[in-house]
Amino acid sequence: MNFTTQKRVRFHHCDPAGIVFYPQFYVLLHEVQEDFLAHIGYPEHEMIAGGHGVPIADMKTEFLGMCRHGDLLTVTLALTRIGGASLGMHYEIQASAQAGQAQGAIKLRSHGVVVYSDIPHGKPVRIPDGLRQALLPYLQTTPQTP
Amino acid sequence: MNFTTQKRVRFHHCDPAGIVFYPQFYVLLHEVQEDFLAHIGYPEHEMIAGGHGVPIADMKTEFLGMCRHGDLLTVTLALTRIGGASLGMHYEIQASAQAGQAQGAIKLRSHGVVVYSDIPHGKPVRIPDGLRQALLPYLQTTPQTP
Amino acid sequence: MNFTTQKRVRFHHCDPAGIVFYPQFYVLLHEVQEDFLAHIGYPEHEMIAGGHGVPIADMKTEFLGMCRHGDLLTVTLALTRIGGASLGMHYEIQASAQAGQAQGAIKLRSHGVVVYSDIPHGKPVRIPDGLRQALLPYLQTTPQTP
Amino acid sequence: MNFTTQKRVRFHHCDPAGIVFYPQFYVLLHEVQEDFLAHIGYPEHEMIAGGHGVPIADMKTEFLGMCRHGDLLTVTLALTRIGGASLGMHYEIQASAQAGQAQGAIKLRSHGVVVYSDIPHGKPVRIPDGLRQALLPYLQTTPQTP
Repeated sequence: MNFTTQKRVRFHHCDPAGIVFYPQFYVLLHEVQEDFLAHIGYPEHEMIAGGHGVPIADMKTEFLGMCRHGDLLTVTLALTRIGGASLGMHYEIQASAQAGQAQGAIKLRSHGVVVYSDIPHGKPVRIPDGLRQALLPYLQTTPQTP
Repeated sequence: MNFTTQKRVRFHHCDPAGIVFYPQFYVLLHEVQEDFLAHIGYPEHEMIAGGHGVPIADMKTEFLGMCRHGDLLTVTLALTRIGGASLGMHYEIQASAQAGQAQGAIKLRSHGVVVYSDIPHGKPVRIPDGLRQALLPYLQTTPQTP
Repeated sequence: MNFTTQKRVRFHHCDPAGIVFYPQFYVLLHEVQEDFLAHIGYPEHEMIAGGHGVPIADMKTEFLGMCRHGDLLTVTLALTRIGGASLGMHYEIQASAQAGQAQGAIKLRSHGVVVYSDIPHGKPVRIPDGLRQALLPYLQTTPQTP
Repeated sequence: MNFTTQKRVRFHHCDPAGIVFYPQFYVLLHEVQEDFLAHIGYPEHEMIAGGHGVPIADMKTEFLGMCRHGDLLTVTLALTRIGGASLGMHYEIQASAQAGQAQGAIKLRSHGVVVYSDIPHGKPVRIPDGLRQALLPYLQTTPQTP
């Protein structure tokens, strides 16, 4: 199962070239991570208040097309791996379909690894069973190669 | 030859866990790109005013350690490839040496590909000769694997 | 009539003190301005594509209480003045009601003046009649003193 | 005595209209506050590590002219009041002088009130004597009206 949500490209995401400034894509992907964690019942602000977080260890991103102010983007998240403390997360950003298109173009593919850790020291901690169960339905059985 | 500069971790780079929010590392790397282009005589704002830019196509990053508010970081940039329109850029972020250390820990390694393009349409354009000559001294002869 | 919308405090809005970093409140208020302009049929990205924008001239803000990661905020916008080219905009940010409260605390009051202008030179331009008609229902007849 | 520093307008400060997105001015002013506190021997990251901070209570800003990517700005900070826990801070941003000008145009004037507070609860705390002594030379004897 994938987690899917929509994000609007905002004025503040865009640069003097009129397109999304690439670090802002990561802000959007982090918002999607927040939306996902809230959706499965583990809101990130409660996780942090409880002394844990999911800092990033690795991120590989292909930027496949420009996105502009006002664009409506569909973002899909799937898990590629649930390890002891680490999670593989695969994101795709797809533009809305234009007239005459069956579907919108893929604008970005990103594969990240985050590590469930204590805060503020950052030591990896085994993902607790409740969270693990909530994550499991989103694990790809046939992993997508990023 | 490498291009090296220093960046201070600012309050606005940091998150509720007290560490650099990872998209802010990309803002810092982009600042280093700006510093580099200005240093070799091709300031990015003049490039953009002239109808060109260097949007990103690909970025792979290893986050090797947390950085905190007030940390002084040394950022090194080297070019791994100068193509027709594309540039391979290798970044390393190193912390300041602590007492008893010969040198500071590497906190981040990142390898990006940017494409010299027209603005706002984003079509790749051959890197002009003057810019190419200015970039050449920073090309690694023995490429570092990111 | 007021324009009202809700915004969630995101991880990326918050600082090492765990509260919204104050410049991020302005990013949120600008999002509300975007939402408002889209709601009345004048999306900001179309306005900009058409060579106009609404740069800010003046902003006075009272920060009345801290907002934290995960908080759900209700933002209200009313117009205090519709001039030739300028608009007076009054914002209030209200927290969600806590247990035992009739309503949530006001966290921020802000009064801004924006100027309908050409882009990129920034000369003020008379607000066109269509936009003026669309703005009119949101003009406070009894102006609220910010 | 004033505190003066220079800031370069970066690509990431600018919006699709090619000018500084106004919330980014506040990020710059906060950087100047950080620079100032470090200059007088009270770096903000040490203040926060020690359980205190200076959250903002009030901010009034006049935006007097657009600033663009690549502009070199001179920012001046003076204190208009040193209260029990609160500080009045007056900022001015001045552009570099252009050919034929004696001095650059003032682009922004801002007057803020920050409150020395405990972190994370945000209760005002009396400014300690050492910090008070370090602030005193920057207090305007003839207060500038913002």
